[in-house]
Amino acid sequence: MIGDEFFMKMAFQEAQLASEEDEIPVGAIITCHNRVISKAHNQTEQLNDVTAHAEMLAFTSAAEALGAKYLTDCTLYVTLEPCVMCAGAAFWTQISKIVYAAPDPKRGFSKQGSLLHPKTIIEQGPFAIESEALLKKFFAGKR
Amino acid sequence: MIGDEFFMKMAFQEAQLASEEDEIPVGAIITCHNRVISKAHNQTEQLNDVTAHAEMLAFTSAAEALGAKYLTDCTLYVTLEPCVMCAGAAFWTQISKIVYAAPDPKRGFSKQGSLLHPKTIIEQGPFAIESEALLKKFFAGKR
Repeated sequence: MIGDEFFMKMAFQEAQLASEEDEIPVGAIITCHNRVISKAHNQTEQLNDVTAHAEMLAFTSAAEALGAKYLTDCTLYVTLEPCVMCAGAAFWTQISKIVYAAPDPKRGFSKQGSLLHPKTIIEQGPFAIESEALLKKFFAGKR
Repeated sequence: MIGDEFFMKMAFQEAQLASEEDEIPVGAIITCHNRVISKAHNQTEQLNDVTAHAEMLAFTSAAEALGAKYLTDCTLYVTLEPCVMCAGAAFWTQISKIVYAAPDPKRGFSKQGSLLHPKTIIEQGPFAIESEALLKKFFAGKR
């Protein structure tokens, strides 16, 4: 059955792609009625743009795919808890649901209180261990 | 003398441009050692992208202009207090200073606590009345 496991695996594969491109390995998928409408991974190095997080790129391409400004019937799957910027962007999109894999106690938005749109459901989902391990391996290789 | 007044006037002119294009009238300028390196205004309608705030576009083009990821020696002039997303983006850019014109009690980042980078100075600057009046006029025209 197609569900969180299936979509988060796709997000994780995006994170693996990021890692291969020497980008911080975070991946994101946006679905609309169980159909994938956008895929993205961190591209801050390639685009020389610290705002080019997986979620930001996914939001922009999802809106383009839908031809609609708001993502009210969509779900974001992302391998790391969104940062403040990405949570703030999610607010503007009015996205229905966010499922993240690994929590981010240092830079995650949740420690700042409720930044999301009141309509947005937030859940911690599958692939937390794998996503965190991929990030740790990446940063260990940088030391 | 070139200073806050001069640069905020340019940001205000960008906001006026936005208004002419039927975009929410917010404008932004980024300077580096008193040289303007990027100019932008809200383009959420034109780009069909709710994340296309003046500040986000200005950050991206400033990094491109400098060929550097971080905006450590730069100042952002913006006609409205940044939202959570833009404050979160400013965090990642490590920008030195933010000067805004009109406060935004409803959507401004400051009510959420300290979202900015500890290195970033934040100031309320000139053109507050003009910037607010431009926004009010725009929204009045939408009713």
